[in-house]
Amino acid sequence: MSNSNANSSDIDLWIEESHRNIVGTRFRVLRTLFSGISEFQRIDIVETAGFGRMLLNDGLAMISERDEFVYHEMIAHVPLFTHPNAKRVLVIGGGDGGTVREVLKHPSVEHCRLVEIDEMVVNACREFIPLTSACLDDERVEVTIGDAVKFVAESDEKYDVIIVDSTDPIGPAAPLFGSEFYDNVRARLNDGGIVVSQGESPYYEADMQRSLLQILSSKFSITRIYNYSNLTYPGGLWSFCFASNTLCPLSDFDESKPAASSFEFKYYNAKTHRAAFMIPQFQRTKLGEFLKD
Amino acid sequence: MSNSNANSSDIDLWIEESHRNIVGTRFRVLRTLFSGISEFQRIDIVETAGFGRMLLNDGLAMISERDEFVYHEMIAHVPLFTHPNAKRVLVIGGGDGGTVREVLKHPSVEHCRLVEIDEMVVNACREFIPLTSACLDDERVEVTIGDAVKFVAESDEKYDVIIVDSTDPIGPAAPLFGSEFYDNVRARLNDGGIVVSQGESPYYEADMQRSLLQILSSKFSITRIYNYSNLTYPGGLWSFCFASNTLCPLSDFDESKPAASSFEFKYYNAKTHRAAFMIPQFQRTKLGEFLKD
Repeated sequence: MSNSNANSSDIDLWIEESHRNIVGTRFRVLRTLFSGISEFQRIDIVETAGFGRMLLNDGLAMISERDEFVYHEMIAHVPLFTHPNAKRVLVIGGGDGGTVREVLKHPSVEHCRLVEIDEMVVNACREFIPLTSACLDDERVEVTIGDAVKFVAESDEKYDVIIVDSTDPIGPAAPLFGSEFYDNVRARLNDGGIVVSQGESPYYEADMQRSLLQILSSKFSITRIYNYSNLTYPGGLWSFCFASNTLCPLSDFDESKPAASSFEFKYYNAKTHRAAFMIPQFQRTKLGEFLKD
Repeated sequence: MSNSNANSSDIDLWIEESHRNIVGTRFRVLRTLFSGISEFQRIDIVETAGFGRMLLNDGLAMISERDEFVYHEMIAHVPLFTHPNAKRVLVIGGGDGGTVREVLKHPSVEHCRLVEIDEMVVNACREFIPLTSACLDDERVEVTIGDAVKFVAESDEKYDVIIVDSTDPIGPAAPLFGSEFYDNVRARLNDGGIVVSQGESPYYEADMQRSLLQILSSKFSITRIYNYSNLTYPGGLWSFCFASNTLCPLSDFDESKPAASSFEFKYYNAKTHRAAFMIPQFQRTKLGEFLKD
């Protein structure tokens, strides 16, 4: 099993993620690197034929090495290039480390806390997906294993940017899509703070998007949704929600900053930042009443 | 077989489109409505469980009723809202009729010719997919069954907008991605004309995009690529190429026109028009030298 060039020519092995049993996306698997059952979920890391290593929680694809840059650049750089000087960042979920990696590129960031409920995700990614997890050893990072719902309710720490890098609203992540959780997130934000949340699929989960934006718009004066296209999640087009009481991701965004940074972006740039907020008409029709700036 | 509520509970029937045998997208099929082998390809129209009716050429998904609006709105309205007064439009390929349907929404259009090589596609769609094909009976439409490569080489007609609504660059559509074809397309354009072409996937077919843009940029002074996200094509994010000798799809686009029209858009609007040209960094890196305006 140590031969990384092993292929599946002897068996035809695929992992499939199905959406409501009407459509599915399949990836060819070469071998399984890790498989475990934690207190919260089943965790697998597989080597695929065309997507590098892939993390799956309860059989749902979380990240692949081939396209994780899309998700992680867009969840991190949109708030961090909108905020003028983010020093303290809280990442909720995201135990693979990819979001933290992008956050740390911003030299203003002095402290980044990752609160991940499932230690097995962190440990498995540390061992098998260094592409995203290596940054967790950075001295600015503090990894907290625990329930983020409890953390935001009980902590008295304050943050400039809070990123809810959650899985789908089933299983351990379900409370991360609730109203009470966002009351506590708001309380943990410094003045001028921003929260960005994983926002599901506009094609397949429009009601979920509506529910999340409804909650955010009841607590924040600026609420927007923005899109990105990746290869791993069903339907390709997915969204993040943006909320703040002071900062607008368009009018408070200085377009010169991304190019002036020394970051090597693969997906994000000043134009994709703006374009992401220009949503298709069907999505605007469904969500328009909750989009505020 | 006349019961449209028939389901596949008795058999587990799926149609799958694979990309290089490393990733696949599968759709649950309820029943086959049409299956035929023409001079050019195999043609199937199936009723799916969640995507309505779907047209497949040689097993590759061409359109589904669920999301065809994305492709057809974006291929038609970007050039037609950029052109100030398009009267004559040529659609090459697109035998399903969806592109023609969107073209005809523009009251300036007096004549729209569809040149489709495969009569079986037109006839099968006329019978089984009226959602896209019904417009082909419009008095402004002329359907020509024939080889578009020959048509643009031999015709002396002129058009304001030419839309190359082609399948992938394999099989009957391969010449539609060649240099000589675009010499003849250019010759068929009126002054101030625009050509838009189906441009494949930035993630999976970057070399093909580069090849097509290289050809276009050698013949036109303005060449751009623009993206859309659908559910049917592998990877979700796909592109169109835009070329003209006079009209820029951004600086010559009047943002007030889409909202002033009476069209009921599902995907397109003035902002998605602009956003589509704001391409991800990896795509800009690959194609930047051929993007001109």
